[in-house]
Amino acid sequence: MEKWGRVGRYENVAEPFHCDVGHSLFMGHLGNHLLNAADFHSSDRGFGMKFLNTVNKTWVLSRLVIEMTDMPKQYEHFFVETWVESAMRYFTNRNFRIESHDGRSIGYGRSIWALIDTETRQPCNLMDIRDGEIACWVDADKECPIAKPGRVKMSKDVPMVAEIAAKYSDIDVNGHVNSVKYIEHVLDLFPLDFYQDKFLSRFEIAYVAESHAGDTLRFYKEQMSENEYEVRITKAVYDDENNASETECVRSSVKFIEKNK
Amino acid sequence: MEKWGRVGRYENVAEPFHCDVGHSLFMGHLGNHLLNAADFHSSDRGFGMKFLNTVNKTWVLSRLVIEMTDMPKQYEHFFVETWVESAMRYFTNRNFRIESHDGRSIGYGRSIWALIDTETRQPCNLMDIRDGEIACWVDADKECPIAKPGRVKMSKDVPMVAEIAAKYSDIDVNGHVNSVKYIEHVLDLFPLDFYQDKFLSRFEIAYVAESHAGDTLRFYKEQMSENEYEVRITKAVYDDENNASETECVRSSVKFIEKNK
Repeated sequence: MEKWGRVGRYENVAEPFHCDVGHSLFMGHLGNHLLNAADFHSSDRGFGMKFLNTVNKTWVLSRLVIEMTDMPKQYEHFFVETWVESAMRYFTNRNFRIESHDGRSIGYGRSIWALIDTETRQPCNLMDIRDGEIACWVDADKECPIAKPGRVKMSKDVPMVAEIAAKYSDIDVNGHVNSVKYIEHVLDLFPLDFYQDKFLSRFEIAYVAESHAGDTLRFYKEQMSENEYEVRITKAVYDDENNASETECVRSSVKFIEKNK
Repeated sequence: MEKWGRVGRYENVAEPFHCDVGHSLFMGHLGNHLLNAADFHSSDRGFGMKFLNTVNKTWVLSRLVIEMTDMPKQYEHFFVETWVESAMRYFTNRNFRIESHDGRSIGYGRSIWALIDTETRQPCNLMDIRDGEIACWVDADKECPIAKPGRVKMSKDVPMVAEIAAKYSDIDVNGHVNSVKYIEHVLDLFPLDFYQDKFLSRFEIAYVAESHAGDTLRFYKEQMSENEYEVRITKAVYDDENNASETECVRSSVKFIEKNK
């Protein structure tokens, strides 16, 4: 434990093909950097995916929220800090801080992870792993000044705005639709012009159920206020008589602010 | 010039969310690493995008071909080498070698780039940049044992297999559909099952014309032999009387081999 501090810090760069038309890093790629940081941090400290797989356990990302005041620009280096804020029996809260190349805090993130058994897919007690060693890594004092993930009630009759079949590039190593790809798909519900006027200030996503290659994903979008939107993604599920019903896979909240011109 | 050799060498890692259901790096992400290597190599040697933009010039990728015998697996480190094979008046040939974490050559790449004026969009003479200094960097002797990009004639009446509107995530910093995203879209024309039986051994793409956000891309796929496919992507273009005609944007050849079981 002496080798590693409680907070992990990782340097990244905003690669050209990971930047949008405004020369800013795409939120999906930022999300990927955060999830990588979580993976490096937990692996280095003995509770990462690689170790967990040897005992038939894995982390499942349940929620992720990212709030930014600025985004790294093309070619800029930036840093992602991550730490465990708390560890309960079945869930752990992991936070993030994003620092610009010149040392400014430009954003924060919060995430919630469950530990599950890879065979039964049932939740497992975190405290059973290495005698609850994860508790030694908790840093409850480091600041993360953004609101926790919330739950907003969408209206019942929200129109479907897009329907896509999950394809090869959408599927991750576990055979599920990739957590990062969902971020892309949600943000693709807004036209390009939109991003020229508005800055994506808060992105929140809840992974409710897994979806797989060939599943048809349906996207429902509701405008909650001038710059706030809720998105629900469902997949069609067929019963024995081939009747389709929809199961919710993902809920997302997207908040923009007007750009200074 | 003493500081840098002719060949650039860059270390990468196959990140978890950049790997497919077979735990192998996606070809699109490998393509991104190659294009990054090209950018780093040329920037370090004084003929990169950053410098060229100051003189209203830019590199445009015309062709890319990647041939692999193995793919980096999730979490594996790997190396990309790149060098300039030749520099003509209007084009340069840049090659790549991909080396596995344990020192094996697992693939090669070839690319062709044009230099254009960012205002007129017309080709420029490479030899006018820094008095033709690029010629000093040419390494014509380093081995790149894969066939040059070819041109296969597709049949006339190939069926359209997909149609997608270019969205926010598809668009790069220049406002064009991202070179890497095209690779993803082409490979998404094959079902997931396909990749469980077959290994993608050669991927070739020619960027013929630029497309933009809102353009509707149409994908035509023709099977040329048991494991070889040609793909043509067009965009619909409207004349003054609102009649649509199709313009070819991209041509791609995809070659698989059966996996050893």
